[in-house]
Amino acid sequence: MQYFEDISVGETHEFGSYEVTEEEIISFAEQYDPQPFHTDPEAAEESFFGRLVASGWHTAAITMRLIVDHRSDDIAALGAKGLDDLRWRQPVFPGDVLSVRTEVVEKRADHADRGELRTRTETLNQNGDVVLSYVTIPMVARRTEGAESTEDV
Amino acid sequence: MQYFEDISVGETHEFGSYEVTEEEIISFAEQYDPQPFHTDPEAAEESFFGRLVASGWHTAAITMRLIVDHRSDDIAALGAKGLDDLRWRQPVFPGDVLSVRTEVVEKRADHADRGELRTRTETLNQNGDVVLSYVTIPMVARRTEGAESTEDV
Repeated sequence: MQYFEDISVGETHEFGSYEVTEEEIISFAEQYDPQPFHTDPEAAEESFFGRLVASGWHTAAITMRLIVDHRSDDIAALGAKGLDDLRWRQPVFPGDVLSVRTEVVEKRADHADRGELRTRTETLNQNGDVVLSYVTIPMVARRTEGAESTEDV
Repeated sequence: MQYFEDISVGETHEFGSYEVTEEEIISFAEQYDPQPFHTDPEAAEESFFGRLVASGWHTAAITMRLIVDHRSDDIAALGAKGLDDLRWRQPVFPGDVLSVRTEVVEKRADHADRGELRTRTETLNQNGDVVLSYVTIPMVARRTEGAESTEDV
């Protein structure tokens, strides 16, 4: 188990991949973002992007799925209080294959039992273009004194 | 149709509602945020919140749905480039009924054909608690000169 004390500023991780199908783009958008350029391939041809694109919230949700699958059980994560500077930089099209790159840019030990990180998160397509980026503020449990001595021995 | 010129700083809108069921919380989380406190009511009892809570990305997606349903065809919206200061302020539990409040806090006419807004968005539960807030940066089409004179006559 990796605790707050075990995480270093500057550490990076890259992981993926997730193929985004047209079917999933439409299914997500019909439920949560029913705009024609997300739900209707024909109508999307008349839109700004000229073809069907994924909802930005869908791309964000896929990014979360990749993060959860990656970190699995190895970080004492306690959720995130929020995020800053979210930007949808490029559209996501059917057939795109997404991956995620994270970098810890700051550590803050705010509480006796847990600390806050600031983690730069970028979602990339198969061409290496960043399609989504944000800075998230995850909270990670601190190792207790007793557990720390055990781990250090 | 409401164009960039028709929108005033300080204007607010309130709309909803959306009941969040346990079934939908679990279904969203199984696909995009498979952590036990989002997917497993029993395991969630042992978690920080003591019961099942919605994924923060699910709350954000529901907020988008409420916005799309509300604005429907009356704003010349061109999507959003991103958002700032997203904070998950309170957990969302099964049975909560969400609504949304927006306020235009800034207008920027960045381009000949469209302008950017900054819109404070808050998602509230049935008790009036803010569960999610962010500042979004929507783009709205400007009325063309020709269309403007037609509308003004």
